[in-house]
Amino acid sequence: MGILVVGSVALDSVKTPFGEVEEALGGSATYFSVAASYFTDVSVVAVVGEDFPEKHVSFLRTKKINLAGLKKAPGKTFRWAGHYNYDLNTANTLKTELNVFETFDPELPLEYRDADLVFLANIDPVLQRRVVEQIKAPKIIAADTMNFWIESKRAELIETLKLVNILTINEAEVRQLADESNLVKGARKILSMGPKILIVKRGEYGVLMFNGGSTFSAPAYPLEDVFDPTGAGDTFAGGFMGYLASIRDFSDENLRKALVMGSVMASFTVEDFSLGGIRSLSYPEIERRFREFKRLSHFEDL
Amino acid sequence: MGILVVGSVALDSVKTPFGEVEEALGGSATYFSVAASYFTDVSVVAVVGEDFPEKHVSFLRTKKINLAGLKKAPGKTFRWAGHYNYDLNTANTLKTELNVFETFDPELPLEYRDADLVFLANIDPVLQRRVVEQIKAPKIIAADTMNFWIESKRAELIETLKLVNILTINEAEVRQLADESNLVKGARKILSMGPKILIVKRGEYGVLMFNGGSTFSAPAYPLEDVFDPTGAGDTFAGGFMGYLASIRDFSDENLRKALVMGSVMASFTVEDFSLGGIRSLSYPEIERRFREFKRLSHFEDL
Repeated sequence: MGILVVGSVALDSVKTPFGEVEEALGGSATYFSVAASYFTDVSVVAVVGEDFPEKHVSFLRTKKINLAGLKKAPGKTFRWAGHYNYDLNTANTLKTELNVFETFDPELPLEYRDADLVFLANIDPVLQRRVVEQIKAPKIIAADTMNFWIESKRAELIETLKLVNILTINEAEVRQLADESNLVKGARKILSMGPKILIVKRGEYGVLMFNGGSTFSAPAYPLEDVFDPTGAGDTFAGGFMGYLASIRDFSDENLRKALVMGSVMASFTVEDFSLGGIRSLSYPEIERRFREFKRLSHFEDL
Repeated sequence: MGILVVGSVALDSVKTPFGEVEEALGGSATYFSVAASYFTDVSVVAVVGEDFPEKHVSFLRTKKINLAGLKKAPGKTFRWAGHYNYDLNTANTLKTELNVFETFDPELPLEYRDADLVFLANIDPVLQRRVVEQIKAPKIIAADTMNFWIESKRAELIETLKLVNILTINEAEVRQLADESNLVKGARKILSMGPKILIVKRGEYGVLMFNGGSTFSAPAYPLEDVFDPTGAGDTFAGGFMGYLASIRDFSDENLRKALVMGSVMASFTVEDFSLGGIRSLSYPEIERRFREFKRLSHFEDL
């Protein structure tokens, strides 16, 4: 059955202390779908402009990603430009050109409406809800959001959260959404808003998952060469949801493994610019890094 | 054989959003020795003033801590005052009164010189070296330091590091000491300065250990009520070294368990002011939290 993802397909210009790229392939739906494509079938709902390079479409097709829902609209593709300093934790946005994304209205091709695993990447919560309403029998709806929507569309976001099973946001956003400085208390508050599972992204410190009474902490992989953190969160979500879609069993044990798989995929993404780190991985490479995560966090009982 | 610790015994005045204490028992040697006392014999080298309350001495004696090296000097006890805001990650120092600590010259009682496990808490690197020189046959010398010494006594610190087997510092201090923004590269650089093992303290994000080719990431315990982070790092070191002293086997597997034990003890410390969180624990409570750390970070193989 695979996964459906709605989000952005973009051209990113990124500068870090280690180099820069101009108008490289980016966007939340792109990172998500390429990461998930290693595990399952992925269908994308997004929009690009007439200027979107054909080579990017071809690349996504080589990953067997279903692009029936990738609309080409009159105008220019969504563009983002940002830079990172040495700490690489905070993106400084230099430019956001919404272009064709400004009037994006996600209408799902008929063949998409049977999807039961859905990822709503970080877009307007009203549009996220529009997508959910078109799904016939959703099983797991996962969603991302950001400070911008928490501030500017709080009521709409809270409506959307009622439909969401798994929410993936960063630490500061947990505190902001819950209006609570303690992370654990904030998590409990968010789990009362709709989601059954809250995944807290902490960048180079890994990921925390709150799933009912179970809390899981996955480390991040300590890397000697981090080139560009752009897309790490969406790649994480793609690995997480892709792995879940491949096993279709949502026990806490499997959610934990899926969380580590998401972290594995994110660790590859940050090692290169744009999609460079995940465009042509082999499954043995992915498994090897999964085992390295295991070794990184394993300790014996007393 | 137990452990020898040299450091401060202090009276701390601390204010956090959750309350405050005035002139409560504190100091690096105090937190360390109380934490370690659950696992092994501890001998303290430190100095207090004539005003040091007898009740604190009595309390330390109830923990069977050897105070032969706790000197009472003319003058007042070392005092520190600080406050924390909601994020609880950064202490804001309001006042540091060195008092008797200003002329502290650690001279070890003869009975202490046979110790082979030593912790040099965060004091002047020259004094740290003075202690090591008095030990007859050191087996493991662990040390802490801080930004103040890295800046003001860099050359002396580097001399001391040549004698140190295990260094425990925080993330920012790794970057500062190694003059390197990437943590992994910084760690490698520090491992070439003397220590065989580097333990990087990351507060609410846990601890990273670099031990030759092995890297271990221990999570921090997500707590609903963190009252006062003062002493967490020294408590961590006490649990870590105390557990190692109790098993006297320094394999990577045991170092990992010891690291988690340190994290367990630190998680108790931050739940109360001063020594409140660790003054009267039972061993089953400690074991229970160790198992919770295991559950927190465990995931199955693929």
